Amino acid sequence: MIQHVTASSNTTLKRLRSLREKKYRRAEGLFLAEGLRICTEALDAGWTPRIMVFAEGKGAHPLVQRLVQATLADGGTAIETSPDLLSGITGKDNPQAVAAAYAPRPLALADLTPGPRTLIAERLRDPGNLGTLLRACDATATTALVLVDDSTDPTSLEAVRASMGAVFTVPCVAATTAELLAWKTQHNAILTGAALDPRAQDYRTAAYAPPALLLVGNEAQGLPDALKAACDQLVMMPMRGRADSLNVAMAGTLLLYEALHFQAAR
Amino acid sequence: MIQHVTASSNTTLKRLRSLREKKYRRAEGLFLAEGLRICTEALDAGWTPRIMVFAEGKGAHPLVQRLVQATLADGGTAIETSPDLLSGITGKDNPQAVAAAYAPRPLALADLTPGPRTLIAERLRDPGNLGTLLRACDATATTALVLVDDSTDPTSLEAVRASMGAVFTVPCVAATTAELLAWKTQHNAILTGAALDPRAQDYRTAAYAPPALLLVGNEAQGLPDALKAACDQLVMMPMRGRADSLNVAMAGTLLLYEALHFQAAR
Repeated sequence: MIQHVTASSNTTLKRLRSLREKKYRRAEGLFLAEGLRICTEALDAGWTPRIMVFAEGKGAHPLVQRLVQATLADGGTAIETSPDLLSGITGKDNPQAVAAAYAPRPLALADLTPGPRTLIAERLRDPGNLGTLLRACDATATTALVLVDDSTDPTSLEAVRASMGAVFTVPCVAATTAELLAWKTQHNAILTGAALDPRAQDYRTAAYAPPALLLVGNEAQGLPDALKAACDQLVMMPMRGRADSLNVAMAGTLLLYEALHFQAAR
Repeated sequence: MIQHVTASSNTTLKRLRSLREKKYRRAEGLFLAEGLRICTEALDAGWTPRIMVFAEGKGAHPLVQRLVQATLADGGTAIETSPDLLSGITGKDNPQAVAAAYAPRPLALADLTPGPRTLIAERLRDPGNLGTLLRACDATATTALVLVDDSTDPTSLEAVRASMGAVFTVPCVAATTAELLAWKTQHNAILTGAALDPRAQDYRTAAYAPPALLLVGNEAQGLPDALKAACDQLVMMPMRGRADSLNVAMAGTLLLYEALHFQAAR
């Protein structure tokens, strides 16, 4: 049954609002997504909301009805509320028609087999960069995004937003550097690191034979020496300006498309 | 002379804080940048702060001293203040050693001659995307970024931050669609638009003869039909996943590097 909620003090709305903070996402075992299109794509990808909220007046939309029915059929909660209270959940001035909370699906590196291309990001700090990289993984049919060592949370609202729904379709795995290197050895995968380094070759002249692991480093510091040393090859993008680096999401996107092109041509 | 400011009610600090809002940037004729590295690179590129603020205890740093001297020599204001008050200017929890306000240098499209590559972005909404595109223009030695029709402000703190200083080295020009098309005709430039369109070819098979104008569209809507029709060619990136588009900064970066590679190979 759909609940009609008009008070911001409602317990479920409070829980949803709390999910913008990592500690509450952990405590509740839930994360947020927003927008009818993204929630519908999530449903198509097999993700049913645990809690789903839609704005008053949107209940007649066939896609909203589909989300409500799927949520209720799966034992979840469906709530109709005012645009203002919906806006309070996501913190956006222009609220979407729906917001929903999902249970994350943690995956271990051991459960993952590298496909032709896997993206690895080391100590990623910015949720927007993480989401953008997930989106690039989706666009290039990349197997997964592996987050090495201490990274920003892929289920933060900012990361989910920037991913444009790719958080539901691209597996995202946390691992330590040691686990990554053991996994690489186990699968005979070839690790290519993006690094401004005298040993690095132009990213367009390198080979990206599968299974290719494509590695980008922390926004401020790039890759640490230990990880660089573990790479089979280092590549760099031409830097023709004043700055000495690209945004990590741009570097990752260039690498993914280069590897896709390389492998498609063979 | 360096002013020592300890009160948040100080008029100059108030003015600086107001620069986070567009209307005050317009009224004051100033915009903000932060960080010793970026402000030093700006100085090297010929930009002297009108107002420069540094944190107590940082005055002995040779680069801070250089910025202070350049600011004072140019008739500007130099202020030493607490890390907390500096943090209040930029709204960042971890304040940088310096923040500075600069006078923008508006440029008209008529003053610009297209080089081998010019990036055009139409109705860009997100300041992070704008800054990231400026950074990609810098990295690929692209002549300028032309912002067509109503765009987000390239001098917002978010855009300046994402540009990592490229706002000081890459000319950024506002223009209408009509002005852009007249400029294209005047310079016999070739306009390539990124668009998911049945007529679009793979971006890696297209030619990017100079002067190449590389066009990306609004985050949500892509390019309008009128602009698509004005393009000499349309290109698209392979989309192998669920989503039907890339982030505009990713699409722009892929195009810029593709054109750089194409032209370098000739």
